[in-house]
This record gives sequence, C-alpha cells and structure tokens, in this order.
Amino acid sequence: MDQPRDTADRFLPRFDAAGLVTAIVVDAGSGALLMVAHMNDAAIRLTQETGQAHFWSRSRGALWRKGETSGNGLTLVEMRVDCDQDALLLRVTPAGPACHTGRRSCFYRRVEADGRLTFLGDDAQG
Amino acid sequence: MDQPRDTADRFLPRFDAAGLVTAIVVDAGSGALLMVAHMNDAAIRLTQETGQAHFWSRSRGALWRKGETSGNGLTLVEMRVDCDQDALLLRVTPAGPACHTGRRSCFYRRVEADGRLTFLGDDAQG
Repeated sequence: MDQPRDTADRFLPRFDAAGLVTAIVVDAGSGALLMVAHMNDAAIRLTQETGQAHFWSRSRGALWRKGETSGNGLTLVEMRVDCDQDALLLRVTPAGPACHTGRRSCFYRRVEADGRLTFLGDDAQG
Repeated sequence: MDQPRDTADRFLPRFDAAGLVTAIVVDAGSGALLMVAHMNDAAIRLTQETGQAHFWSRSRGALWRKGETSGNGLTLVEMRVDCDQDALLLRVTPAGPACHTGRRSCFYRRVEADGRLTFLGDDAQG
C-alpha cells in the first residue's frame, strides 16, 4: 500500500509516538543552523498556510508561532523532508535573533574534549 | 546546584526519556545539512574519542558508527551544543554520500504546498 518513504513523491510525515517530527531551522541566506524544534501536524499545516514558522512546545504542551512574543518570527522560504520523513528542514528568513538568549543561533557553544564549553561570537555560529 | 543550561560553560547534555539527544550533521566545508540522527552518552563519548561520528539507532536499538558498512564515515571537525543542551551540531568532513540512498544529503526533497515532493539534485541539497 504505502510507497517507501525514501522514494515517495508525496509528503507522508512519520510522526513519533508523541505526534511530532524534528524541525531543523536554517537561515536561507547564510545557510547557518539557527535552531531545532518540533512540529506536529497542526504546526506543519499552519506554517504552510501562513508562511510563518509554527512549532509544538513539548515543555508547554502548546502550539506556538515563533516570534509571537519576541517579534523574531521566521518567514518560510522552503520546506524539505528527509529520507525517512521524520525530520523537516525549514529554510527561513529570520526577523531577528532565533535564540531566546538573543543570539543569532542556538548553537553558540563549542564542546571541548574536556567537557568545557567555549562561547562563540554571532559570526561563528550555526 | 545546576548552572542554567543556556549559560553553562560545562557540557551537561539533557537526554530525553530514552537517553538520547538530537544530532544534526552538517558538512564543515559547504555548511550543507547532511542528516539528523540520535546520540546517547556512549555515542557522544565514542565520537569524541575516535573523531568518527557514532549514533544510536532507535530502530535497531544499537550503537553504530556511521560508515561501518557503507564506508561513508563522518570525521568530526567540531561539536556544538544548543542553548538547552538537548541538541548537538556535528560539523564533519564526510567520506562520501551521507544518505543511505546514495545522495549527499538526506534532505533531497522539497515539500510543495499541495503535498507533492520535488526531488532536488545533489548541488541543491542541504
């Protein structure tokens, strides 16, 4: 019945037991990795319909639009899906810093061999 | 006791109920997103010690080294962690295609508004 997900030409997201897929958000201009979040079916549909990235917050148990409080929304440029359709790539244009800490990217620390973290400047992130 | 994870200068991965964090793999040269996988504590340690990316396969319930069967290993250039320390960025040098389909990246399909998927060439991926 099902087409194998890696050769399918139809979008058939494979949600986990919680109804979620992983969403990886990348700046469409620079290619920098900005953040990782989760999407349920409603978040995907709202993102497609409005062109603004929506996610599911596991900690708050709620749907949210990125930027609804911070103003730093993410305008969707393109959505891609991975081979087994359990992860999405959102290529976006960010209105401001993507991280709640005010940094451009959530990935602002390098993990060193001894377990220390080195903080990176905005230009080196993502 | 605990430093808040987003200001910590120590690596304190926040594993989920299954003992996993999300690992996002990016080509250190081109910046292209290659794949997404999961890592447990052992996979992180082995990756740091050997310089070759190791992951935890949820479907097989086993630790694996990327490339152990395909030969297409991923040499670690740098590991970063996100603000809440539940996702890792692995910047790598890939020995070959990262996707099991033989493509450079697992993200080789664009999701269209009507639910169709458009296949992208290797140069447009990631």
